[in-house]
Amino acid sequence: MPFNKIILPEKDIPRQWYNLAADLPGPIQPPLGPDGQALKPEMLAKVFPMNIIDQEVSIRRWIDIPEEVLEMLALWRPAPLRRALALEEYLKTPARIYYKDESVSPAGSHKPNTAVAQAWYNKKFGIKKLTTETGAGQWGSAIAFACNLIGLECKVYMVRISFDQKPMRKTMMQVWGAKCVASPSHDTAAGREVLRKMPHTPGSLGIAISEAVEDAVSDKSGNSRYSLGSVLNHVLLHQTIIGLEAKKQLKIAGEKTPDVVIGCVGGGSNFAGVSFPFICDKIHGKKIEIIPVEPTACPTLTRGPFTYDFGDTAGLTPLLAMYTLGHDFVPEPIHAGGLRYHGMAPLVSQAAAKGLINPRSYDQIKCYESAMIWGKTEGTICAPETSHAIACAIDEAKKAKKESRK
Amino acid sequence: MPFNKIILPEKDIPRQWYNLAADLPGPIQPPLGPDGQALKPEMLAKVFPMNIIDQEVSIRRWIDIPEEVLEMLALWRPAPLRRALALEEYLKTPARIYYKDESVSPAGSHKPNTAVAQAWYNKKFGIKKLTTETGAGQWGSAIAFACNLIGLECKVYMVRISFDQKPMRKTMMQVWGAKCVASPSHDTAAGREVLRKMPHTPGSLGIAISEAVEDAVSDKSGNSRYSLGSVLNHVLLHQTIIGLEAKKQLKIAGEKTPDVVIGCVGGGSNFAGVSFPFICDKIHGKKIEIIPVEPTACPTLTRGPFTYDFGDTAGLTPLLAMYTLGHDFVPEPIHAGGLRYHGMAPLVSQAAAKGLINPRSYDQIKCYESAMIWGKTEGTICAPETSHAIACAIDEAKKAKKESRK
Repeated sequence: MPFNKIILPEKDIPRQWYNLAADLPGPIQPPLGPDGQALKPEMLAKVFPMNIIDQEVSIRRWIDIPEEVLEMLALWRPAPLRRALALEEYLKTPARIYYKDESVSPAGSHKPNTAVAQAWYNKKFGIKKLTTETGAGQWGSAIAFACNLIGLECKVYMVRISFDQKPMRKTMMQVWGAKCVASPSHDTAAGREVLRKMPHTPGSLGIAISEAVEDAVSDKSGNSRYSLGSVLNHVLLHQTIIGLEAKKQLKIAGEKTPDVVIGCVGGGSNFAGVSFPFICDKIHGKKIEIIPVEPTACPTLTRGPFTYDFGDTAGLTPLLAMYTLGHDFVPEPIHAGGLRYHGMAPLVSQAAAKGLINPRSYDQIKCYESAMIWGKTEGTICAPETSHAIACAIDEAKKAKKESRK
Repeated sequence: MPFNKIILPEKDIPRQWYNLAADLPGPIQPPLGPDGQALKPEMLAKVFPMNIIDQEVSIRRWIDIPEEVLEMLALWRPAPLRRALALEEYLKTPARIYYKDESVSPAGSHKPNTAVAQAWYNKKFGIKKLTTETGAGQWGSAIAFACNLIGLECKVYMVRISFDQKPMRKTMMQVWGAKCVASPSHDTAAGREVLRKMPHTPGSLGIAISEAVEDAVSDKSGNSRYSLGSVLNHVLLHQTIIGLEAKKQLKIAGEKTPDVVIGCVGGGSNFAGVSFPFICDKIHGKKIEIIPVEPTACPTLTRGPFTYDFGDTAGLTPLLAMYTLGHDFVPEPIHAGGLRYHGMAPLVSQAAAKGLINPRSYDQIKCYESAMIWGKTEGTICAPETSHAIACAIDEAKKAKKESRK
């Protein structure tokens, strides 16, 4: 009988996050304010609590995971590392293919890893309410879940078209006690302004961000803050538990350093989660190929320049040093909605600029064909985003076969 | 940090199914043919392969799980046993609440446990194609998944209203290579007859069963058979791996015999899976309260008589000895569609008739309130069916608190 699940005992869950900023060669390029000067941390104080801003700018290598955050993570973590034996057999490859299964979280994605941490830090800072935006609903449901656990009020601005098309995610947020409204809404000046001009707009992530930020910063009590699900340093930091667990599990499986590490990449948090602990090994001399996979429809790392650009469409955020297709770039409506982001997390961008990672882009049809192979071999039906990583893993496994690598 | 997941190592997966028919006191009441005489096994040979019919009538206590079936089950099994620590804390109960998490299967329910076994036995018997019916799609997707793994053609008749309302389940079946058609269809005489009389009917499970059985038995090649997802003895047998794993996991957790075992019950396979190995202990002297929970809207075990009735609406199946509300009973359209069955598995019915289990019924609102408590404490949003078991578990935990039991 095959053994395909490598389970990390709960007592061995990682107790620190890994901060790539400590190890990246050269200085980190800071965010810039509207005046073109480096942003001072306290300038973000109305948007994020100071303890999260401290984490955002920290260059300490290891950051302790608070015990109460660990308790919440332990509802579903450690997540299984699985070996894709059926896919290996189908491909007749000598490669050993492992994958980290983040689908076991209550909201169904990797997003709750940072959601519970962000909710905890906000609560600790005395915040009563978090606001955020969501597209298809993965991030909105994750933050709703976390706010429910920790006892925070939660308001989610969900892009109108998704709000109408994906009632299930909306229901999940409501079960977890969050208020979820279609964006643009009448609840903010930004929303009302858009509705006045375009009463029938399907909405956009850019508009929803504006509404969520306005909601947080305009709260007279000062007890509201905004929460973001990707891109920023502290979000990526919280996701590194994925790769840290994977390293321990590979050791249990009797494996040494992997030859290749692959993750799909949109804003950067999923890819950073699995890869940053391996980038650390690479910086310290290990030979590992690390591949972020993006859609050809949104080829940020493979086609964009590395420059300063806004994080949002409307140009309200600070300027971030990143690979970008331009903040007004609108990708084709591919199914992998989570990978349709014009920019890239600054830490991922800097790793790419330093040649530490080797980005690739795949087109949707090839990804879907790979997802079908996966569904017919490994049994599970993956998300469109995930299919990008699978397509690349299949290519790498075929290459290993051609080269007769072991 | 709390430890809430009890993981059974893959090497300790149960290697035999438990057959309650071997231990039930008194003779098993056999199915009857249209003539009122006990059905001879070979009379079912056009519907099921003989190796499955042998299992259906077997009274051996332990039946080996074929190695290749174990290999398929190991794609997701052993399933975790989890302790509901957050719910316990919320209820401030001295009770220790454990639950078996069958959501980890690729199709998302317990149904694949029997689907892979049935597909394997059919393949071994030389069958090329399986037909079945499905309502909301859990069973249809499970059998499509299994047929894909084992290499069988698969045709699923999906009740029209669900086919239109639940496109996701239909897509899952298609990914796994099954043909899924709305029922009533033009593919069978039964379907055409219904469509002629009622061209706009939303369909029913009864009609879909008729179509699936006709499709299998009318195949001139003799290489098609029909597959059922609950009620019959062999289906319940395959599900006992759930309870057998749970027993091993409770031992790992340092627990002795549980005081109470609870499962929601519709046709009977989920409840049988978790409870039959504990009913075995009860028959052999252990003190355990075993509670099947059904909806008040379909109170088969709590209100129905124990008698002979047809398994389907149209009266095409053999007569089964079971608790039943009458084969023409149409339950209210409650959300727990999987519990809307007029009858009850004969083995579960006989266990109830002998006083080995203590059925209860719960109404939908109470179940939904319990599901909300569960979602807010344990984090996961459960199925409407599952919420019936949760409602009962909460009641039992409150009782334990009142009685200050440990």
